[in-house]
Order: sequence, then structure tokens, then C-alpha cells
Amino acid sequence: MTKLYGSVEAGGTKFVCAVGDENFQVVEKVQFPTTTPYETIEKTVAFFKRYEADLVGVAIGSFGPIDIDENSETYGYITKTPKPNWSNVDLVGLIAKDFKVPFYFTTDVNSSAFGEAMVRKGVDSLVYYTIGTGIGAGAIQRGEFIGGTGHTEAGHVYVAPHPHDIAHEFTGVCPFHKGCLEGMAAGPSLEARTGIRGELIEKNSDVWDVQAYYIAQAAVQATLLYRPQVIVFGGGVMAQEHMLRRVRDKFAALMNGYLPVPDLSDYIVTPAIAENGSATVGNFALAKKVSER
Amino acid sequence: MTKLYGSVEAGGTKFVCAVGDENFQVVEKVQFPTTTPYETIEKTVAFFKRYEADLVGVAIGSFGPIDIDENSETYGYITKTPKPNWSNVDLVGLIAKDFKVPFYFTTDVNSSAFGEAMVRKGVDSLVYYTIGTGIGAGAIQRGEFIGGTGHTEAGHVYVAPHPHDIAHEFTGVCPFHKGCLEGMAAGPSLEARTGIRGELIEKNSDVWDVQAYYIAQAAVQATLLYRPQVIVFGGGVMAQEHMLRRVRDKFAALMNGYLPVPDLSDYIVTPAIAENGSATVGNFALAKKVSER
Repeated sequence: MTKLYGSVEAGGTKFVCAVGDENFQVVEKVQFPTTTPYETIEKTVAFFKRYEADLVGVAIGSFGPIDIDENSETYGYITKTPKPNWSNVDLVGLIAKDFKVPFYFTTDVNSSAFGEAMVRKGVDSLVYYTIGTGIGAGAIQRGEFIGGTGHTEAGHVYVAPHPHDIAHEFTGVCPFHKGCLEGMAAGPSLEARTGIRGELIEKNSDVWDVQAYYIAQAAVQATLLYRPQVIVFGGGVMAQEHMLRRVRDKFAALMNGYLPVPDLSDYIVTPAIAENGSATVGNFALAKKVSER
Repeated sequence: MTKLYGSVEAGGTKFVCAVGDENFQVVEKVQFPTTTPYETIEKTVAFFKRYEADLVGVAIGSFGPIDIDENSETYGYITKTPKPNWSNVDLVGLIAKDFKVPFYFTTDVNSSAFGEAMVRKGVDSLVYYTIGTGIGAGAIQRGEFIGGTGHTEAGHVYVAPHPHDIAHEFTGVCPFHKGCLEGMAAGPSLEARTGIRGELIEKNSDVWDVQAYYIAQAAVQATLLYRPQVIVFGGGVMAQEHMLRRVRDKFAALMNGYLPVPDLSDYIVTPAIAENGSATVGNFALAKKVSER
């Protein structure tokens, strides 16, 4: 019998659904925009229905905050999100009720972290940050997710402001917190500072140094609090070679040699899995794990 | 046969050595100032020699940074410390060579975290911060220490400066980093700001609010990156009831309801183990663990 694993990458902008084989190779992958919960979940269910005979488990990596406490009444829910219509949606329940296989539920960044750790030989402690419209991080240690009562939410830590932002009294774009990492360094902060959409800003603009300063602080934080073997940065901003270089430079300056870290070209990196596939591969592996429980 | 467990709390100011029975009750405890490595280690060895017949394991919780990687050539060493004479000292090796029992090695804050988690029913994820001449934190999850390639070093993360410190261009007392948590909020920062020794500063001084602002940021960070069940603050500064209250208030303001946390009087707390005994109790338990390996 063929065994297939299911992956749902539930993003705030789009859902990516995939099934993979026992080697975690993609058999089919589809994506559609995240519209209403009803419509989006219906499409998700329809996709997996076609593979139901061979499906042995599904992992869902979702935008958050989400409830991952299996003993909670709202396990499987997206909880309080600023995204319209999506607060208190029983994401796992509404998908799983049409299937007999076990489901695994975590954050999209945890799925990505799991995928990235899996493909790196000898790596069992890793942090995966996504720098996009929001900022989040998933963290793995000894092959398991870090997180006691819930999942990590590394985007909303406070950071030291860059002199440019102090001078312009810029306190970020987060509706919850003035001066948090996400507010200061997520994609929309670039446009808020410059009036120009991030993708259109010139490579030599000083605003990249401002953003890199915050992202480097996140890397310092991850280093000191998790001591990972590698820090992976996903998302379009960090796919730019010049940004990776800027972040490494600022990280070195901020750490100031305080702790030994690997060579920065091995330590502060972009995903090893191509085409934003980290979460999908991670989900296949998590689906396998949950199917074998 | 009586089984005894040994504990060394190796601090930068003093060493506390103890032996405990199978119920982790202290049989004898001694302390002496941290002078030269030779003299201090000699006293440590002499203390445990008296109990050698019944000793089954010893745990050492040390000031850092230390090397806890058992595969490393410098495992058991205090590595690069600003404390004179103590850099590159083989602390574990020099003590253990005179004994036949197994030794466990971690940071003093990890030992404290372990002790505090152990005495709290149902708690297996906990962060222990010490706010003293330095700032450090130990973190536990599912009963194990967090830390991939080494131990956590939570004191040197960057924090958002308090307006008072921006106005006075105060960038902290850390020799490695301008504006890190330890530099801005460890005990010596109080005297650097006010010219008055911390113990002598009036309870109603505004400087406490400045310090609480940073400590609350640390609690926010621990919450977001670890999601612990409880955050314990050790050290003299936080033993003051007014400081605990200030930190809780600022924490609530900074989190702004973003994530659910327990009632703050259960979540942001001081040690459950009296008289700075957290590390000793934690070490007894770690010594037991290593003796049963």
C-alpha cells in the first residue's frame, strides 16, 4: 500500500496544500488565497479527499496565534488574530472531521523549522524566522519544538531602536506593541518609513541597515536564549543576498565576541529547502510522526 | 547504605558547598569566598572528602560562561570570564579528579531553575532569572534544560531603553555590549545611575521603575520565546515586594494582552525555596540523576 502524507501550510494570505510520498517528495501541491474560513477549508478538504485512500496522516502549520494544547477545549483553533473572520476558528476540527487519519497541528514557522532541521545533517537545534508581513519564529531542540504552554511568538519581543527611528520617532507598525520586533522590522515597516513598497526600495537604501539592525537583534536573542546550531531566515526580504550580509555584519557587531558561534556563513542562513518548501517538507515529516503514534 | 548527594554552587563572589540526603535535605552546608581557583577548589575538595564514603554524585552549578558540551576538550571549564584568574579553569576536572563518583555540570541559574521546577507541582517548564551583580537565566522544558550548543546567556540580549536612560544617554555597565539587559538592569546599574549603592536607594525612587522596565522586558522575552508555566526571579533586588509589583505591572503593559498568561501573581514570582537554596536543591536532584545514569 502506498502511504501518503498531507501538509497544510495555512498562511494569512494563502493556503498551500500538498501530499507527499514516503520519501517526502511532493506528489501534488496546490495553493489558493485565504478567503473566508468556510471557503478556504472547503477547498482544503476537497484536495485531500482525492487522496483519502492512501493518506495516513496530515500536519497543519498555521498562522497564529493558535491553540496547540491537546488538553484544551479550543485545541486546533486559530485564536485571537487580527485577520478578519479568522478569530476562534476551529481549523483542525473543521478539516479533520471529514477524515479518519490523525492530524498534527503547529505553527507555520514550526513546520518550517522542522523541515529545515530534518534536511541538515547532524542538526537537532535550529531556529527558523520568517520575515514577511509579520515576523515569527519556530524553534527546535533535540528534535522537539520549544514551547511550554504554547508555541513561540518571537515576533513581539521588544528591541533597541535604531538611531534613525529614534530621530524620526518611528515606533513601528504593530497594533499591539510600540517598538516590538515585528512592528519595527516586518515588511510593512519598510513602506511605513519610506512611503515606498519594500520590493521597490533600492538595494543601497539606508533603510535596509535599519531593518538589518533589528533582525540581527533577533538573531542575538535566539543565540543567547536557545543556543541553536543554526538560524534560518525565510521570507522574501532575507532572500536578498545584501540583507543576509547586513544581518551577519550587525550580528557580529552586536554579539561582540561574547559567545562562540559557528562561522556566520553557516550560522545565519536562508532555507536549504528551495521554493518556500520548508513548511511542506516539515509537515510531511510531522504527519509521518503523528501517523506512527 | 546512606546515599548522599553533593552540590557546588560556584558563584563569582562565593562558593556554597553542601551535601544532602535522599530527600534532598541539607546534611551540611558551607560557604567561603571565591578567591583564587587553587584555594577555592582545595576547600571544595576538602569539604566533600569528609563525606566521600556515602557520596554517590555531585552537581556543580557555576557562574559562566562555561563549557557544558561533554564532547568538547574543554568540557567542565569556566571559559572566558571577566573575573580575574578564573578564565580557562578546569573547574570540574580539578574537583572530580579526587573522587570516584560522577559529576554533573551546568550553570548556577540552571541549577536554580531545576530546583524551583522540582518543588512546584505540575511544573515542567520554567525560567529562573537571577538579578544581581549580573543577570542570567536558566530555562527548563519538559524537565530538561533549554540550550542547543551551550547554556543560555539571557543577560546579554538587547532591550528597548527607558526614556530616562535615553535622556541621560545611559548605555549601561556591561563591558561587552552597550544597552544589553545586564548592563541596564543588573545591580551595578543602579549605582551607576544614582551614585548610591542599590541597597541604600529609597523604595519610592523612580530608578526602580527604570529597572523594572527592563526586567519586565526580560519576562516578555521569556514568555514569547519559551512559553513557560512560571518565571522565577531570584536575587536581592527582586526580593523587594515593591519590585515584584512594579515588574508585574510593566509586564502587563508591555504584553498588552497579546498572549494568555497565568495570573501574574502565580506567573512572575520569587523563589519557592527559601534562603537562596534553589541551586542547592536543584544540584542534589541533578547529582541523583547523574548517579543513576
